[in-house]
Order: sequence, then C-alpha cells, then structure tokens
Amino acid sequence: MTTEHTRVAIVGAGPAGLVLSHLLAQAGIESIVLDQRSREQIEGTIRAGIVEHGAAELLASIGDTSRVHTVGHRHDGIELHFSSGDGASPAGEPEAHRIDFAALTGRSVWLYPQHEVLIDLIAARLAAGQDLRFGCTVTAVAGVESDRPRIAGTTAEGEAFEIEAEFVVGADGSRSVVRPAVTGPSREGGYFREYPFAWFGILCEAPPSAPELIYSNSDHGFALISQRSETVQRMYFQCSPDADPNSLSDAQIWETLQARTPGTELKEGPIFQRDVLRFRSFVSHELRHGRAALVGDAAHTVPPTGAKGMNLAIGDVILLDQALQELLLRGSERGLDAYAAAAAKRIWKSQHFSWWMTSMLHLAPEASEFDRLRQLGELRTVVESEAGQRFLAEAYTGWPYQTAL
Amino acid sequence: MTTEHTRVAIVGAGPAGLVLSHLLAQAGIESIVLDQRSREQIEGTIRAGIVEHGAAELLASIGDTSRVHTVGHRHDGIELHFSSGDGASPAGEPEAHRIDFAALTGRSVWLYPQHEVLIDLIAARLAAGQDLRFGCTVTAVAGVESDRPRIAGTTAEGEAFEIEAEFVVGADGSRSVVRPAVTGPSREGGYFREYPFAWFGILCEAPPSAPELIYSNSDHGFALISQRSETVQRMYFQCSPDADPNSLSDAQIWETLQARTPGTELKEGPIFQRDVLRFRSFVSHELRHGRAALVGDAAHTVPPTGAKGMNLAIGDVILLDQALQELLLRGSERGLDAYAAAAAKRIWKSQHFSWWMTSMLHLAPEASEFDRLRQLGELRTVVESEAGQRFLAEAYTGWPYQTAL
Repeated sequence: MTTEHTRVAIVGAGPAGLVLSHLLAQAGIESIVLDQRSREQIEGTIRAGIVEHGAAELLASIGDTSRVHTVGHRHDGIELHFSSGDGASPAGEPEAHRIDFAALTGRSVWLYPQHEVLIDLIAARLAAGQDLRFGCTVTAVAGVESDRPRIAGTTAEGEAFEIEAEFVVGADGSRSVVRPAVTGPSREGGYFREYPFAWFGILCEAPPSAPELIYSNSDHGFALISQRSETVQRMYFQCSPDADPNSLSDAQIWETLQARTPGTELKEGPIFQRDVLRFRSFVSHELRHGRAALVGDAAHTVPPTGAKGMNLAIGDVILLDQALQELLLRGSERGLDAYAAAAAKRIWKSQHFSWWMTSMLHLAPEASEFDRLRQLGELRTVVESEAGQRFLAEAYTGWPYQTAL
Repeated sequence: MTTEHTRVAIVGAGPAGLVLSHLLAQAGIESIVLDQRSREQIEGTIRAGIVEHGAAELLASIGDTSRVHTVGHRHDGIELHFSSGDGASPAGEPEAHRIDFAALTGRSVWLYPQHEVLIDLIAARLAAGQDLRFGCTVTAVAGVESDRPRIAGTTAEGEAFEIEAEFVVGADGSRSVVRPAVTGPSREGGYFREYPFAWFGILCEAPPSAPELIYSNSDHGFALISQRSETVQRMYFQCSPDADPNSLSDAQIWETLQARTPGTELKEGPIFQRDVLRFRSFVSHELRHGRAALVGDAAHTVPPTGAKGMNLAIGDVILLDQALQELLLRGSERGLDAYAAAAAKRIWKSQHFSWWMTSMLHLAPEASEFDRLRQLGELRTVVESEAGQRFLAEAYTGWPYQTAL
C-alpha cells in the first residue's frame, strides 16, 4: 500500500462534502472525497428537501447539472393552521394563516429533494474532474494534531488505502468516523435533546393537496402536508416515537391526516411508502480540533420541522471553505481558529429555530392545558404581527451567510 | 339592612376596577366600587410598574391627577445582556444589546409604580364623584344568572350591606371572591403553571445603575436591574422558590447581583427591603358567566418578567367596558357574549409573552447544556434580527387595544 497525498481529505459525499469540494476547487485547492456508500445508494436514498434561498443560489452555480431552479419548485410561503380555541370558548374553528416569505423577506425556498441535489452535485463534481471515490470505508483518522493528518481504510474492492492530507473534514453524517478525532472519544456524545414524539411519514400517488406546505397544529396533533412532485405527495403526522409504521391501515392513516387538517381537503392516493422519523437534536461538543473539522450531520442533527438539515450543512462548509483558504493559500490559522465559534453561532440559531417550530406546532404528551393554550397564544402572536411573521420567514428562508472573520 | 341599587357593582379598587369605573362613568353608567382594604393600604403597597404605551395614554386621560407622563419616566428601550458562549468556545464575554422600542415601534413604556397609579386613580375617581368604598368585604355573590345579580358583605364598621346591580365585576385580585360565581366552585382552579424559580428582590438607596432596565441572562442566572426613582433602585435576581429573603447578607446580595451583570457597574447602597417573588401563571377557566365577569388578577396572573400584570388588567377592562355599554345602554348581549373570547385572545398572547421572556432569560434548574445553548441561540436570533427585536418590542410596549366585535 502506498500513501496518497492530497490537500484536503473529505470523508463523506453528501451535500456538505460535495459542496465543500466544489468551493475548494474553485480556490484551486485539491481534495479527495470518499464515501462508504455506492453512487447508486447515495442517489437512490429518497430524502426530504427544502432548500433555503441562498443555498439554492449556491447549488445552482455548481456546474451545468444543477436543476434546483428548473426542476425544483419555488415556494414563496407556507401555511400555518391552528385551532382558534382559546380557553374561553369551545375548541375553535381551524384558522389558516399564510406566511408570505417573498413579501416578508424577498426570499423564497425551493422544494427539491436531497437525493436530486446529490445526483446534480455528483455529476457536476465528476465532470469537473473531482477525485470522488465511492465504496471507500474510512476506519482510522490519525495525526490531526500534526500538519499532516492521515485517513486509512478499505476500498470497495477490499484493498487498504491511506491518504495523507493537510486537513481532514468529517462530512460523514450522524455516525461520523471522523468525529472522535475531533472531540476525543470521551466527549463524542455531544449536546443532545430527544423529543417525546416522531413523525409518521407516507409517500402516496396523488396530486398536491395544496400549492404550499401546510403546517397544521390541530387539536389532535401535528400534521405536515408536503409534496415531492406533481404526482407524488409526502405527508406526515405526529406519532409516538415507538410507533410501528405497519400498525395502521391506509384508511386509518387517511383518517388521522384528515382529522389533523380540518378545513383542508386532502387528495388521497395509493400509499407506497411509510416510515417513522424519530426526532433528535444533537451538536458535537467540538467542531474542530487541530487539522480536522466536522460539517453537516457529523456536526449536528436537527428535528425535521424547520427543514434545516441540508441547509445548515451548506452553511458550515461556506465557513470552513473560507478558513481552509486562509490556511492552505495564505498559511494563516486565523480563519480556522474562528471557524468553530462562527459555525456554532449559526448552528445554535438553527437548533433554536428547529426546536421552536417543533415545540410551537406539536402537542407534547406531557403538555398541560395551560401549555396548549399558551402555544395557541404564541401562534396567534406570530401570525398577527408582521414582525413575528418576518422573524419566522427569515429563519425558514435562511439567514444570510456570513464570514467567520 | 336595605338593599342598595347600582348599575355595575365592581369588587376591587385596583387598577382594573378603578379604570373600569372611569370608562363606565364616561358612558353615563353608574357603578359602585368596593375594596376590602383601606385607602391607606391600597396606596401604600409598593408594587412594580411598567406601564405600556397605550395604558399610559389611557391613565393620563383620567382626571387631572394622573402623573404617569409627568412623574413617570419614559423608557424607550431595554437592554438584553447575555453570554456569547456558544458551545464551541469557553463561556464567552458578556454581550449587551439594546432593544430600541421607540425606533422599532414608535412606542415606549413608562416606569411608574403601581401604587402611584392607584394614588392618582383614587383621587381622580373621588373627585369625579365615584361611589368608592374602602374596607368593604364582599362575602357573597348571587343571582348572576338573573338580570339582577347581588353582592353582600360587611363594611369597615362591621355593618352588613347588600347591593343589587345589573352586572357584577370581579376586579378583586388573585384571591377573588367573585371568581367562584363565574367559574363554578369546581372549576375555580383554572389553567396554571408554576416555575422552578423565583425572584429575590431588593430595594436600595442608590442612584440608577443604568438609564434603562437591564435584563441579564448570565452564566450564573438571571438578574434584572430596575429603578424606582432617582434615589431608590429595585433589583432582582433569580433564586429558588424556597429561598428565605433573610438568608443572604447584604454583601452576598451585591456579590450575586454583580456576578450576574458582568460588564455593568452596579451602584450599591443601603438595602432597605428584601423579598422573594414566586412565579405563577394562571388563567381562570371562565372569564364571564351570566351577569358577572372577571378582570385583572382575578382572571389571570403572569410571571413578572414581561411586566404585563397591570397592563393586561387594563386590556381586560377596555373590552369589558365596550361589552357593558352594549348591554346597559343598548340592551344587547352581543358584546358580552364576545367578551370572554376577545379577552382570552389578549390574555393568552400575554401569557405567552410572559412565559417567553421568562424561559428565554432564566436558567431553569433542570435545563441541560443543550437547553442552555439553544437559549443563547434564541437570544442571538432575536437581537440579530430587526424583526425579532420588533416582535419583542411590540409585545413589551403593548399590542394596540382592539374591540371585541
């Protein structure tokens, strides 16, 4: 086995790793991107995708293959539905309030599933000559306190490999193998929070029930009416974290969804996928140590309510790219020293937004009547205020990217 | 004993009862206001007072005696202080952010203690010929389902009295004797929430430490630096609900306050009062039944963080006045039927705001590191956004009063 050399070794070919390799290449910095999955696995794992305004602009600029602005759907707002019940009258009529992102912020979001983003990015990076290797399992990360960190592992063909770099990036998801090299094994747990509910999700063959996403806080619990395409719809409803996806009949699923979206006529169709998504908030104790850093799900996970997962990953790599240019082109560690604090600021804002949307929209099992009525008071305060709506819209469409320095 | 007659019997001569008597009198509706306390007790019980923009305008319009705009101090903003610690760097430097109410909303608040408001209101109502009786303890409320409800009790001189009215208002505080007539005895508990902390408050002889109120979320817990006058300061710090006000020396109190306001030099002086304020959120299950209604603390209590207590009481009576004019001048129950729902909307918005300010600024004993960092992320999101600041400022300075219909 010979040791290969590159400037930046990027572990993980998800949105974070691929976008980072593009940004580095634009600055003339060579990298190798490795992922233990096959290209087919990466491109075939269907995942949600609400792309922030700025993230969509960046993705659209990467190669000729980006379809976010052509195949993706621009959404200029969301609908918030909730009960007008207020403790002084019987549980009330459903109220529908639109948060008009475009009018409030001049920004929109793009509905474009993450696997489509990955199809585009992989094609673009390969076309640009990126060294991008699938099926490569990294088993060791070493020397991050030196200026020549190394990763080692096994290729798809079962051959051992070793790469020496000037920097190692963990973009390898929530079960990151790079993370222990950054946090130290004993601190790997990170900051976390669990939630007493999950989402029961379905995919069904039906046209959209509404032009935009509906977030419904009903007296029966939360539901989200979302879309994949003109013919496939994605819908979710709040369930127990222990729920069995196969425990409900199709009829029961539709009954649950309809009960939680009063005033909305759902378009029903054959359900061809069902799953239960557990909610978890996590932030790694450390984001960078020596010559290694974490980005994306390796650094943090958020509950899906705020649609921040992929967007936050892109926010990380924009900051890390700046720091690595400082280090590798100008020999200064200043940007790197500032990376963790700058990334953490955006991460904790996003964690808050995700927690806020989650807590404002779900019925927590332990919530008292007071908590429920306060929650409806919160929703009312937000929708009755231009400032409240804009505060939400700014976060949902994405705060502007900032530099670390 | 003869039965007296009036149109509206108002139990309680706090801000709610006195303001309501003024509004009714302006519409030509006679009322009797009774309070079990003496005038001296009412005027001598020192209580906090941040008066919302609109509430101050209303108070200033009541008689020639109102001093809110002359003796009160206009505050055009507050300061929010918090640690910049973000999980990626050591607990950080203190940051100070001003919320500029005047610039954000065109509105201000007035620092004017509640007992001063009461001195003004009592003088104004007596000068206007209001039937206002002190030392009268109401012991029975009856007939609220008829159109001639009655209250009965004992005067300061120990004589029994009975008053028949067309409407009875419970403005008699958190231990309201009118409340059971509105809610039914079994529902008297209401919606409530307790908090795992309280405020340790002091009054001291010292000039202001800062021109505006400082709300400080420090790594050691919450502190509020407030004022009473040019020579008397009011300061609070978060403590256990079981704290004994006499358990700390003056030196320990100053040490605690200084530690929780890093970057601010507190003006110290002799401490002449100390108390522990417990936090409680409460909303009565019903706000009106038949010919009786609740306003102010009889209807709800809020934790002090949002300074909403007196202001919310005034919001209630503005709505109830409209409803009573409909009933007593035009014979329509329409306004009365709408009162509870309209009042509840404002109450639950205020309950949310009070809970929000409380939860955003205090360190809950059970909070995890994740919760703490999310809280700092929340504060950062608010202060970095004009919309976030304005959302807070709108609530703090008071939403515009609305009609019930």
